[in-house]
Amino acid sequence: MNLPTKVDIREVCLRDGLQIETPIPLSAKVAILEAIVATGVREVEATAFVSPSKVPALADAAELAEELQRFPDVEFSALVASPNGAKRAIAAGLRSIEYVVSASDAHSHANVGRTSAEATAQIADIVAIAGDSGTSVEVIVATAWDCPFDGPTDPQRVLDITSAAVGFGVNRLAIADTIGTTTPRRVSSLIEKVRPLIGDLPLGAHFHNTRGAGLASAYAAVQAGVTRLDASVGGLGGCPFAPGASGNIATEDLVYMLRDSDIAVDVDLPAAIDAARVAQEAVGHELPSALLRAGDRILG
Amino acid sequence: MNLPTKVDIREVCLRDGLQIETPIPLSAKVAILEAIVATGVREVEATAFVSPSKVPALADAAELAEELQRFPDVEFSALVASPNGAKRAIAAGLRSIEYVVSASDAHSHANVGRTSAEATAQIADIVAIAGDSGTSVEVIVATAWDCPFDGPTDPQRVLDITSAAVGFGVNRLAIADTIGTTTPRRVSSLIEKVRPLIGDLPLGAHFHNTRGAGLASAYAAVQAGVTRLDASVGGLGGCPFAPGASGNIATEDLVYMLRDSDIAVDVDLPAAIDAARVAQEAVGHELPSALLRAGDRILG
Repeated sequence: MNLPTKVDIREVCLRDGLQIETPIPLSAKVAILEAIVATGVREVEATAFVSPSKVPALADAAELAEELQRFPDVEFSALVASPNGAKRAIAAGLRSIEYVVSASDAHSHANVGRTSAEATAQIADIVAIAGDSGTSVEVIVATAWDCPFDGPTDPQRVLDITSAAVGFGVNRLAIADTIGTTTPRRVSSLIEKVRPLIGDLPLGAHFHNTRGAGLASAYAAVQAGVTRLDASVGGLGGCPFAPGASGNIATEDLVYMLRDSDIAVDVDLPAAIDAARVAQEAVGHELPSALLRAGDRILG
Repeated sequence: MNLPTKVDIREVCLRDGLQIETPIPLSAKVAILEAIVATGVREVEATAFVSPSKVPALADAAELAEELQRFPDVEFSALVASPNGAKRAIAAGLRSIEYVVSASDAHSHANVGRTSAEATAQIADIVAIAGDSGTSVEVIVATAWDCPFDGPTDPQRVLDITSAAVGFGVNRLAIADTIGTTTPRRVSSLIEKVRPLIGDLPLGAHFHNTRGAGLASAYAAVQAGVTRLDASVGGLGGCPFAPGASGNIATEDLVYMLRDSDIAVDVDLPAAIDAARVAQEAVGHELPSALLRAGDRILG
């Protein structure tokens, strides 16, 4: 068993967590922002610069971006789905963007109206746009294991996008279980194929707990060489294809598991539970986090 | 990575699942029983022969035992905490019993009024009582990782109970994360220490999802050589020390993960989800299972 000494957690509550929620006021997002910054997390995916009509919950991206200036020690990022989105993010002051490429054509088409190959080709444009401002680019390969429309994803599609992204000069790569269907064995298997293609680029992974195996997949990913994991306080972030289901893996549950594995993280556990409470209050419904109910280990 | 080709799931919904619930009528238990037998599961922990005043939810153990006769192809077992309980279980027709020994003194004393060493010594009596009727005995080591009162459990305490149990001639051994606090690295570490002590005896493990890492721990256990796992449909089975927290790992979530890892199980996934619905209706409150909300993989 090879475990890293440190894992970088990116807090995605404000983007993936809120994405399919009923829109909440900017002030409520700022309350969440302050709570997650207080956890000590070094990286926060703050919003997305995408179509406001398709994702109304994130229509205030530029306004929220102004609030981020108050926290110069945190690396804030935004998700984009097109060169235009990248321009908007950079104009709003972001210096770290995630560009999503779906490995399956059906999901890619549903999301951005382009095939997977067309979206892959646009990585070059995104990198060029980002380069002028010194902005970091991460490619996130979505539907890396399964697509809600096309079924299981051929791993070769993920590898092709990975090789293209590396060739275009991205700064980081991540693979995402968009609909929360993968499990540890498939996680290990895909990561073992991706790793040889990326050299020294940091490799991240993004899991949902929709079918209960989110932390199991995260642990398998870390065993296989992933050093960056996305998570959302409270486990906020449902799946549009599974109403009522659990969302992103919960930051506090992930921190508990990693800390117990002697893997260092920047996130303070009690502060993450506090932030989960703030997020729960902001969205006004119960969140699926385990630690939010059970608390830290008794007498631990 | 060494994964077994098959894992035996023991359904514990009727015992550990119902143990701290408000008592439900025998007819409701029979409805759950029929639903879990329909999943194809080969082993069911049906009840416990313990003090009816301490565990009122299982006070109908002898009555439920009569119902079990209808399903001769299933191996039913009962949990016991004393020689007297073993006698009652055998008199009621059970031919498989689990005797629980807490590895921590504080939990052992709270549960059965004896030290861990005293409870360990009684294994000899239990085996003698069982032997007369050809009853199989499994020792379950409780609080194997953490105790709610004593904190982390010294692994040597688990190993001492294991060696004693093997010496007394038990048929199986299992280690249990009684309060849902362990995580994969500690699971691997303890199982690697236990395995050399038990020869060819089947090794089981029992996890709660109280802090979200239940399936991650189950997967780590299977990787480390465990071939028997307890689970409860719906994830029924709260923890008395964490009100409202998740319970046992959910059978359907476990089946989903193992099936996806090419590990055979006897449990049918749609039938397990159906049984979780029956259990949810019987107890009258929402259960924490992920599959109960999200369903099987879309287009999988």
